[in-house]
Amino acid sequence: MPTESLSIDGGLLPSWNDSTTKSAILDLVAAVTLEGGPDFVPPAQRIAVFDNDGTLWCEQPAQVQVLFARQRAAEMAAADPSLRDRQPFKAFLEHDVAAIHALGKQGVFEFAMAIHAGMTTEAFEATVRDWFVRARHPTFDRPMAGIVFQPQIELLDFLRAHGFKTFIVSGGGVDFMRPFAEAAYGIPPEQVIGSSVKYRFDAADDGPCQIVKLAELGSFDDRDAKPANIALHIGRRPILCFGNSDGDLAMLRYTISGTGRRLGLLLHHDDTTREVAYDREFRLSPLVEALDRSDAFGIRVVSMKRDWGTVFPRP
Amino acid sequence: MPTESLSIDGGLLPSWNDSTTKSAILDLVAAVTLEGGPDFVPPAQRIAVFDNDGTLWCEQPAQVQVLFARQRAAEMAAADPSLRDRQPFKAFLEHDVAAIHALGKQGVFEFAMAIHAGMTTEAFEATVRDWFVRARHPTFDRPMAGIVFQPQIELLDFLRAHGFKTFIVSGGGVDFMRPFAEAAYGIPPEQVIGSSVKYRFDAADDGPCQIVKLAELGSFDDRDAKPANIALHIGRRPILCFGNSDGDLAMLRYTISGTGRRLGLLLHHDDTTREVAYDREFRLSPLVEALDRSDAFGIRVVSMKRDWGTVFPRP
Repeated sequence: MPTESLSIDGGLLPSWNDSTTKSAILDLVAAVTLEGGPDFVPPAQRIAVFDNDGTLWCEQPAQVQVLFARQRAAEMAAADPSLRDRQPFKAFLEHDVAAIHALGKQGVFEFAMAIHAGMTTEAFEATVRDWFVRARHPTFDRPMAGIVFQPQIELLDFLRAHGFKTFIVSGGGVDFMRPFAEAAYGIPPEQVIGSSVKYRFDAADDGPCQIVKLAELGSFDDRDAKPANIALHIGRRPILCFGNSDGDLAMLRYTISGTGRRLGLLLHHDDTTREVAYDREFRLSPLVEALDRSDAFGIRVVSMKRDWGTVFPRP
Repeated sequence: MPTESLSIDGGLLPSWNDSTTKSAILDLVAAVTLEGGPDFVPPAQRIAVFDNDGTLWCEQPAQVQVLFARQRAAEMAAADPSLRDRQPFKAFLEHDVAAIHALGKQGVFEFAMAIHAGMTTEAFEATVRDWFVRARHPTFDRPMAGIVFQPQIELLDFLRAHGFKTFIVSGGGVDFMRPFAEAAYGIPPEQVIGSSVKYRFDAADDGPCQIVKLAELGSFDDRDAKPANIALHIGRRPILCFGNSDGDLAMLRYTISGTGRRLGLLLHHDDTTREVAYDREFRLSPLVEALDRSDAFGIRVVSMKRDWGTVFPRP
């Protein structure tokens, strides 16, 4: 595709306001797709990685998987009331935000994954799909699927239309994200990288074989684990990375420190009207160092308030 | 694509002899691609997984990565002669087949990976690429890249032409296979799953960031670990699986025990003239149970001698 078609007034990325951010995105894509140009990148190497919680969808008042785990914990406690007095069940059931935050991001996600130990991956997938059909967001008056960010949906589509392969690299559980990611973002399961538990292969002698989720953590895909998991799962250094917290800083730095044209984008939630304004005080996934040192690292800060004309899809 | 185009005399898969094996492959592809048919599978779910050593390329007299490790060990011993008396260096340097086999498949691959600890993934990739340019196979008079199996190259192309996504799921080291797999098989790095070491993210304060290979094993991708890694990396049950040893039995069973049309193929090396005839006695990767119980499991045995008209590409 010729460079000229990617001008800022060309109707591309309609939910992105005309700004230096949008220009930086269009410039990168124009440069790496211009055959014969100095920055051309063959399609197979056009890897773009996106964090999920707070980057592709809203993570307030808590990450969607935490809301899912809370409801699943309630269902389990209804069947086994003794769970009501056991931590961290108690904290989740009583919506004890301080106690939940005290677990830390890893502790919360480990709990969310561990309560599904013993399920087959296929039964868990069905549970997640079923939950998404009914779940509504607790503060925005929308189905859970409606809290994805419209500008990011457009960006993912735009990148793929220009030969990029788009991946999620998130601290969220990989089995939780996959059923949703394909429908919502157009990202197939094999391009979703996340936190994971270990699996056991179960083979019945008369045929049926399943993969069973175990309680033991496989990988907590946050901070330095993100570029390591990119190496393990993708095997190429991305040329575009989009995150929103210090958990994404390592993969942002890994992305932009490669040779050739690259772009690291950091979403700053600064829109009190349309979403939620927060950064360093969000205990489950703070944004401090990546924001304070963005200039030094060469990371471009995206202001939701300034750069996005629309936040959520039309209901 | 209409079913009728996949007849056995249609010039498809030219290096495959007309046989029930070839018909089974054509029938599967015709069935899952027939829109509106009872066995139709949407393209995104057409996942095919292939073992590598002994399935996509020759693994005799030893897996290619073992040959690579042997030469790397020799280079290291030239720089540090004290290695010559240390096991398992000694066994590799002296081509002591009994001692190498005594290490077992996992031991051999762990050694092959561990001797590269401390290298960045990008430096290792350059080393592998450089080796493949010069390496020749020790018994066939060919460059190392010439020992891929021509019928499998055609099968991979054929599957992709019908909307399949093709993956390697191998006990070989993922970082070793990736540089080769893209050029030889048309399989990009993110579709190569293999054994792996753990990685460390190294960030210099002034910018450059790298992934460094550690000595510690991450995953030995053999037997039950194969379907578990399919769950972790792909997140879907494949509909076609091709292997050649007991190391592939779990993923073969996992593949064919799903619902809908499926195909599990097991290559039997029974061609003394064109390749090497072996199965249960190959200590580094024996074929015993998968062969003996293939009928009970519903796995189709592919005879190299009977089913393949050509084995290697034209030099």
